[in-house]
Amino acid sequence: MKKAIGLLLWLTAVSVQAAESAPAAAPNGVTLPAYFKEWRIIGVSQRNDKQSLRAILGNPAAVEAARQGRTQPWPDGAILAKIAWKDAALPEWPAAIVPGELQHVEFMVKDAGKYVATGGWGFARWLGNALVPYGKDAAFDQECFQCHGAVKARDYVFTRPVVIP
Amino acid sequence: MKKAIGLLLWLTAVSVQAAESAPAAAPNGVTLPAYFKEWRIIGVSQRNDKQSLRAILGNPAAVEAARQGRTQPWPDGAILAKIAWKDAALPEWPAAIVPGELQHVEFMVKDAGKYVATGGWGFARWLGNALVPYGKDAAFDQECFQCHGAVKARDYVFTRPVVIP
Repeated sequence: MKKAIGLLLWLTAVSVQAAESAPAAAPNGVTLPAYFKEWRIIGVSQRNDKQSLRAILGNPAAVEAARQGRTQPWPDGAILAKIAWKDAALPEWPAAIVPGELQHVEFMVKDAGKYVATGGWGFARWLGNALVPYGKDAAFDQECFQCHGAVKARDYVFTRPVVIP
Repeated sequence: MKKAIGLLLWLTAVSVQAAESAPAAAPNGVTLPAYFKEWRIIGVSQRNDKQSLRAILGNPAAVEAARQGRTQPWPDGAILAKIAWKDAALPEWPAAIVPGELQHVEFMVKDAGKYVATGGWGFARWLGNALVPYGKDAAFDQECFQCHGAVKARDYVFTRPVVIP
């Protein structure tokens, strides 16, 4: 019982934060999107093999694509962010796993023409609160790409976007 | 190494969705915020005792308060949303717990004067994709409030807002 209202001018006054100085680019040239923490949610996950909790956000192009089912493939311009924290137990309710120390923020930037060598996605990761770029040289992203090969059938994206009523 | 840019006009054209007809109000009169799925993230969690994954979002007033540390108490006007899904294993990576069936969406609406009987918060929950209001009568929220008594020292809020660099 939903309808799309279509393109609506979404206007709201919010205070946002940006780094005083942007962190260094990843070795493959991908830069950190300045306002990714203002993006909307498209998924959450918990990794038993990594003991970490994740929030997956999308830029407006990615959120639009996810809601419209245009993810085979995702359109150029879509960017997915994954924020990973170490698992922690909430002291007042220990059965609840909540975010502990920030591990890293990761991104997938869709540009089918530019990132041919990695499935049309530019992969990047920054470590910890200091946002230190991950990877020794420009070929680091082959590590990302090979792991994401497990979901080649879904355009290399692990996240299945949630549908919120 | 962050600075607040202050109030910035956040202008972006996005398509949003609203229910054709809003779901019924909760028995205590709390109504479902129409555009909560456009809100920003303030936390994630996984409940071992409930086998569920949660995303916690905040309306602009809540996100501002969380980022500025104004949560003892949270200000009137802040609204927190918790979206809960049943745990599911990602087929391509079974060690990853991902959202399965939607269980419910829950809200805490801060109004210290209006909701005196429940710690200054209006509690509400809607079940499943049909968004069926939870609770038999207006006193149902005492159940919410009693459980949240475990975190009375943090203004009855389980979520510890994440800090994203």
